[in-house]
Amino acid sequence: MKDVLIIKRDELLALAEERRFAIAREILLDIPAPDTAELLSELDSQLLTAFFRLLSKEKAAEVFVELDTDVQRELIERFSEGELGSILDEMYLDDTVDLIEEMPATVVKRIIRSAPRENRTLINKLLKFPKDSAGAIMTTEYVRFTRDMTVRDALAHIKDVAIDKETIYTSYVTDKERHLIGIVTARSLMLSEADTLLSDIMEEQVVYAETSSDKEEVANLFNRYGFIALPVVDSERRLVGIVTVDDAMDVMREETEEDFAKMAGITPAKTTYLKTSVLSIWKSRIPWLLLLMISATFSSTILNRFEAALPAVLILFVPMLMDTGGNSGGQTSVTVIRSLSLGEISPRDVLSVLWKELRVGLLTGISLGLVAFGKVMLVDCLIMQNEAVTLSVALAVAVTLAITVFTSKLIGALLPIGAKRIGLDPAVMASPFITTLVDAASLLLYFFIAGSVFSL
Amino acid sequence: MKDVLIIKRDELLALAEERRFAIAREILLDIPAPDTAELLSELDSQLLTAFFRLLSKEKAAEVFVELDTDVQRELIERFSEGELGSILDEMYLDDTVDLIEEMPATVVKRIIRSAPRENRTLINKLLKFPKDSAGAIMTTEYVRFTRDMTVRDALAHIKDVAIDKETIYTSYVTDKERHLIGIVTARSLMLSEADTLLSDIMEEQVVYAETSSDKEEVANLFNRYGFIALPVVDSERRLVGIVTVDDAMDVMREETEEDFAKMAGITPAKTTYLKTSVLSIWKSRIPWLLLLMISATFSSTILNRFEAALPAVLILFVPMLMDTGGNSGGQTSVTVIRSLSLGEISPRDVLSVLWKELRVGLLTGISLGLVAFGKVMLVDCLIMQNEAVTLSVALAVAVTLAITVFTSKLIGALLPIGAKRIGLDPAVMASPFITTLVDAASLLLYFFIAGSVFSL
Repeated sequence: MKDVLIIKRDELLALAEERRFAIAREILLDIPAPDTAELLSELDSQLLTAFFRLLSKEKAAEVFVELDTDVQRELIERFSEGELGSILDEMYLDDTVDLIEEMPATVVKRIIRSAPRENRTLINKLLKFPKDSAGAIMTTEYVRFTRDMTVRDALAHIKDVAIDKETIYTSYVTDKERHLIGIVTARSLMLSEADTLLSDIMEEQVVYAETSSDKEEVANLFNRYGFIALPVVDSERRLVGIVTVDDAMDVMREETEEDFAKMAGITPAKTTYLKTSVLSIWKSRIPWLLLLMISATFSSTILNRFEAALPAVLILFVPMLMDTGGNSGGQTSVTVIRSLSLGEISPRDVLSVLWKELRVGLLTGISLGLVAFGKVMLVDCLIMQNEAVTLSVALAVAVTLAITVFTSKLIGALLPIGAKRIGLDPAVMASPFITTLVDAASLLLYFFIAGSVFSL
Repeated sequence: MKDVLIIKRDELLALAEERRFAIAREILLDIPAPDTAELLSELDSQLLTAFFRLLSKEKAAEVFVELDTDVQRELIERFSEGELGSILDEMYLDDTVDLIEEMPATVVKRIIRSAPRENRTLINKLLKFPKDSAGAIMTTEYVRFTRDMTVRDALAHIKDVAIDKETIYTSYVTDKERHLIGIVTARSLMLSEADTLLSDIMEEQVVYAETSSDKEEVANLFNRYGFIALPVVDSERRLVGIVTVDDAMDVMREETEEDFAKMAGITPAKTTYLKTSVLSIWKSRIPWLLLLMISATFSSTILNRFEAALPAVLILFVPMLMDTGGNSGGQTSVTVIRSLSLGEISPRDVLSVLWKELRVGLLTGISLGLVAFGKVMLVDCLIMQNEAVTLSVALAVAVTLAITVFTSKLIGALLPIGAKRIGLDPAVMASPFITTLVDAASLLLYFFIAGSVFSL
């Protein structure tokens, strides 16, 4: 929490002590909503509710939306029906849907009962879209025009309805059947003469998403085109909602953090690190560690099988082979996973990716193999005078390393693309997973090359 | 490239063949700028220039900004002074500055010479800000009001100046010395009566950045507050520029991809994966692989030192110890690195982070140690009937594993925070680096525990 927020919190606590709530209210109203949310989250449940009740209706809704799920739940349980209703009335529909999706069934019932009657059908409709679709993150609160309206009509219409609309900076022109036929920006409204027809200023080349589009793809569209809102249509191109840039940024951020977490073998968390309990962190980290630890049994088995038969000196280079293979595969898998996430490549590009990694793998494998050979001969053989390190050993290490690096690049490319093709999240196929696989593969290869090729 | 773009490209190529450029022009003008840029990038230099010249002045600038650096350079070299000048005239100043930063000195000279005279001083001023600061990504093309203007005045002023402004959705109110005193949104202008004074509708609680603020922090402000523009002030709180949401999204994206790349031990690339040459990919990956490969020498040295003195059976569990330690440290480092990037924690939180990881590490270490003990006794001792695996061996493995996991969590937390504190990028302290460190540490620990504690 930033210094200035800590000072404000202490100030508010002092005022609460002295029951000077009118002054507290003035301070609270001056703090932006996300900061107010952070500040209130630090208070105990009773003070939280007391301070929350000081907020204006509009500010209360803004702050409520920014609170963590558990704090929201605490507040809902302390709210009267009227209080809950008034907040829901101020909230945008997409935020209400988000809230409902996070709450347990009993709370959901209360929310739907308290929501404004006219919104209930809409909420139920939005709740039916798949969780990761454009339909699930869109709002139905947009401004809609017809093509025969003038700029004057449009501006007057905006004045009438703006209070309930999430954005008035992009409005949508539809025909009688609600088919999307154009968009009109507030910019063009503000710069055009009052008598101009919307059909003359609307843009007809509209980029849109469908309700079933993946929300990550929707977020990527914002990044590509620099939109502040994107229309969402149904399968017959009828306008059903919009996604705004702030929601798209939230999606981008969530998806990115999910990728980071999965790549590190962690179940993605819903709260920030410092707010997550030790037990939750433990739970989010232990499954992959366990799985990977048990998988390392393969490597043990391979070591066990060959250790006795081969010269002990070979063991010295096992850590280097395993680490380099893992790192090398990890580089490729992370690159491929991110390119998939950003929509820069799709599973159909598998051949281009393989062709590229094949050449990179060859270059990398050969260069690392050469360096490894030089290093083993120079450091282990000449400087450290380890007599067991012969030319054959150095060659076996170098060749194994080159092939391991080359192979790990191909595995690092294939696994995420394969995962995506069969509908799994590519991010799971990241470094930790590939490390385990490459470990076993490189050991097998090493002992085979040392034993059979160099007859060690 | 999306299917529809491929079709359009083929269509355009056919039209070019038949020299029907008027029709080609109509097709081009209907494609959104980022798509036009992608499509043109696929063409050879001559056709690229020919098609580019078909675009309207405004569209040409929009498309130009979206092109990759090498394509931009190609075009600039083929442009006449007049053509270049006309594009620069249409471009926003922040985009011009971005362009200049990417071009070699000779091209930069031409750009500055061709830029509109009135912009040259501004461009030079913007170029002086440090590369990663708010000053370097801001634009000076914003709308500025005084507090005694009415809504009518403001709307009229916007009509006059909008053509050159990057956004008209947020305008800024300053006093005579240009100090920022409030912001006025287009929303409030559109919804207020014409005679209202700006001082009555402006928001006075303004979140702003300073020119020297880190651009990543600026991007995080957009995420937190859902802005579409953010004012940038100098050290005396005088308004000097604004950052718009599309630029903030670009920064977020760049910084995220940089983090991903660095965490995987890759030098961040400037172009998308498929467009990057094999040699560039190789160059971006080889340094860390080499460094880490050479560092693995520590592990070899440790193995070399203890191998002969201790029972060979211990080697079997080396891969498991190394991998689990590396994965466990990687989980923590990735979490800490991301929390630092997102501004959720700062180096000052080091004690809270350590206290959390200490407890998580204890829990994780003990649980993994117990499972490892069970697994070794059950699988290696009972099922595989490996007689060398005694109770002492299983205990040595389990205890080493527990301590390694615990230690690696602390290392994973300390290294990124330490890096940040001394001004390095925390992302470099990610899994590959920590793996190498943890490998050596866990081996030392393993042999010490096996040899000294369990007298193996």
